[in-house]
Amino acid sequence: MPDTAIHPLDAAIALNETAPGRYTAHTHPGYANAVGPFGGATAALLLNAALQHPQRLGEPISQTVHFAAPITDEPIQITATPVRTNRSTQHWLIQASQNGETVAMCTSVFALRRETWSATDVKFPADLPSPENVKPMDWQRRPEFTRRYDLRYVSGIASLDRLGEDLPELPDAESMLWVRDEPPRPLDFASLASICDVFFPRIFIRRQRWTPMGTVTLTSYFHTDSKTLAAIGSAHLLGRARGNRYWNGFFDQSAEVWSAQGQLMATTHQIVYFKE
Amino acid sequence: MPDTAIHPLDAAIALNETAPGRYTAHTHPGYANAVGPFGGATAALLLNAALQHPQRLGEPISQTVHFAAPITDEPIQITATPVRTNRSTQHWLIQASQNGETVAMCTSVFALRRETWSATDVKFPADLPSPENVKPMDWQRRPEFTRRYDLRYVSGIASLDRLGEDLPELPDAESMLWVRDEPPRPLDFASLASICDVFFPRIFIRRQRWTPMGTVTLTSYFHTDSKTLAAIGSAHLLGRARGNRYWNGFFDQSAEVWSAQGQLMATTHQIVYFKE
Repeated sequence: MPDTAIHPLDAAIALNETAPGRYTAHTHPGYANAVGPFGGATAALLLNAALQHPQRLGEPISQTVHFAAPITDEPIQITATPVRTNRSTQHWLIQASQNGETVAMCTSVFALRRETWSATDVKFPADLPSPENVKPMDWQRRPEFTRRYDLRYVSGIASLDRLGEDLPELPDAESMLWVRDEPPRPLDFASLASICDVFFPRIFIRRQRWTPMGTVTLTSYFHTDSKTLAAIGSAHLLGRARGNRYWNGFFDQSAEVWSAQGQLMATTHQIVYFKE
Repeated sequence: MPDTAIHPLDAAIALNETAPGRYTAHTHPGYANAVGPFGGATAALLLNAALQHPQRLGEPISQTVHFAAPITDEPIQITATPVRTNRSTQHWLIQASQNGETVAMCTSVFALRRETWSATDVKFPADLPSPENVKPMDWQRRPEFTRRYDLRYVSGIASLDRLGEDLPELPDAESMLWVRDEPPRPLDFASLASICDVFFPRIFIRRQRWTPMGTVTLTSYFHTDSKTLAAIGSAHLLGRARGNRYWNGFFDQSAEVWSAQGQLMATTHQIVYFKE
């Protein structure tokens, strides 16, 4: 790819403004998943509708996305509304439809931050191998979007190709991995929002088998700002994901996204539909 | 309170339907917090707008609430819309306003569950004292809503009255407590949604001091059904809460709600504004 070409993530989140707060957009083949686009690309697209809005206040604090129906390759209509703007916080409702039907819905908090006392209770994993010392994941049956990430699993899974070989269940579904955009791209809120959905469904790891599944809703909390993200640039981030409970057709998983220097950039949670 | 009287939670979540999916509601003095109502009561009220809706499909899987502005004691106008109904899942948007301005917003997934393989990766705490062997929390400066819960802290905090006595910071903010409605009330999705917000702001515990704060958004995942909740009745539930990251004016906390028998009923996360 020549240096001057647009990064595929920027193509995937591109918005064509048709009126204030109203946009059209399209899926991008680089972020295709088994059915419709990768959820992370959808999260980034919807967040971008608020990021690009002239009434935006400050930077993203949280995002909740509802994946209401499969998104097709037809045009996507997006409406972004700042439903309440206070002195330092702003609440957003962002809705996406195709052919007049809701396909995704997103709410978000933006805010002006002030410097305060800060601390992190979660511990950064100790004794990690550096990204250069971990092999990139390589597997046959990968959906296209996984080629947009450099994924280097430190623990939790080595190859998805072996799933289905009648492997025994694992006692939990924790994974750690180094991850960055592929090709490399300077980190910003859009790419961080997308990376929050890059963790494989925990049920694959827990049960060591393929399971029909789909994320129904994703919530991410951002503990950073644009300046910090820009300083990270295209360095690898560390992700750590775990499962919580799997029960009668749905499970939830939680994850952390850290800078290599041990700053917790985001915490993210999702609930996933599964079928036996 | 005579046996025949309505429970204060039922009074707090009562809806007066004015048109399909449109309701009016009111705050209840029993759930008053320092400013406006307890967030858990608001979460339960908004969830109830979907629970009572004639187009509801199945039972709640997730709920995200945005606390957009302080709710006053004036009438609350609520609109509940099933924005997308699929074969077995349904996505909701529920908006609350006062005097034409949004004060809260909620999204939710409802679904029909089927019996499947199930498992829990999170471990239930071992060697817990039973609720009868833990003293109910007693403190002077308690907001009224805390009297609607029987709160028995096993660890993490003994008394909020001592906060502000120049105590040293703690290394983390984990708490465990037994909790049930006061007066006792049979558990259902509305009361579980409210209990998901019953954990004190982690920053109070972490810093051992009062801090001006307010939850901006809360997400809860429900791993149960009405039948299981009815069987629990008014028994105590075990809550375990922890802080994640506190950074420049916002922090996030996560919690689990368990039955006394060790079933994980809900996982819940929130991001909280704070000021120094």
